[in-house]
Amino acid sequence: MTEATTTTLLPEPATDDIRLAAVLHALADPVRLQIVRQLADGHQDMACIAFSLPVSKSTTTHHFRVLREAGVIRQHRRGTSRVSTLRTADLEQTLPGLLDRVLVAARAEALRHPMDPPSDAPTME
Amino acid sequence: MTEATTTTLLPEPATDDIRLAAVLHALADPVRLQIVRQLADGHQDMACIAFSLPVSKSTTTHHFRVLREAGVIRQHRRGTSRVSTLRTADLEQTLPGLLDRVLVAARAEALRHPMDPPSDAPTME
Repeated sequence: MTEATTTTLLPEPATDDIRLAAVLHALADPVRLQIVRQLADGHQDMACIAFSLPVSKSTTTHHFRVLREAGVIRQHRRGTSRVSTLRTADLEQTLPGLLDRVLVAARAEALRHPMDPPSDAPTME
Repeated sequence: MTEATTTTLLPEPATDDIRLAAVLHALADPVRLQIVRQLADGHQDMACIAFSLPVSKSTTTHHFRVLREAGVIRQHRRGTSRVSTLRTADLEQTLPGLLDRVLVAARAEALRHPMDPPSDAPTME
């Protein structure tokens, strides 16, 4: 008898409830921008991404939640891990072209100002 | 003998110092989005725009300052009035296509959810 691993979808807004101001707020943080870039590059596991971020685990959890509650990412709890994906199609439907422009700008800025490290300093929230 | 009206440029970041996270933060507020839409529609006078916003004059001044300090708008003090313009070319150089996508999304959202009023409620700052 095998026991299937339960996968739980964490709470998120419906596509129609995604709002521009909330998405911009979620993206308006260097650490969250870095998370979004890593998800766009194909990473999925939260613990794995957290490993490369210069912030504590609880801060990372907070940042993933802000992104999820704004509708930018989807999170599944599977056993003890959380798998995250960008809601690319939902965002494209609601805010066409926006995520793409943000990712392009974030990558260009990382090349232009490599000395701007995402920090754990308080952000303007 | 005529006395020229002095025009003072208020402090703003150089184009190269405009940062994605700061611009997204500045745009991540319904009232500031409405200000940016009105500037994009050709309005310039801060007092005139303030007249159509559902917030107090001091809150409006705060919102204009956040936009200016992020590099989204330029403000000149001319006599007792403040003239504001979008830094469209500077933003296009630093964050290509971003402002355009935000404006398109903001207009579409205003049509889709006309009952979402910008409010004077505390934002997540």
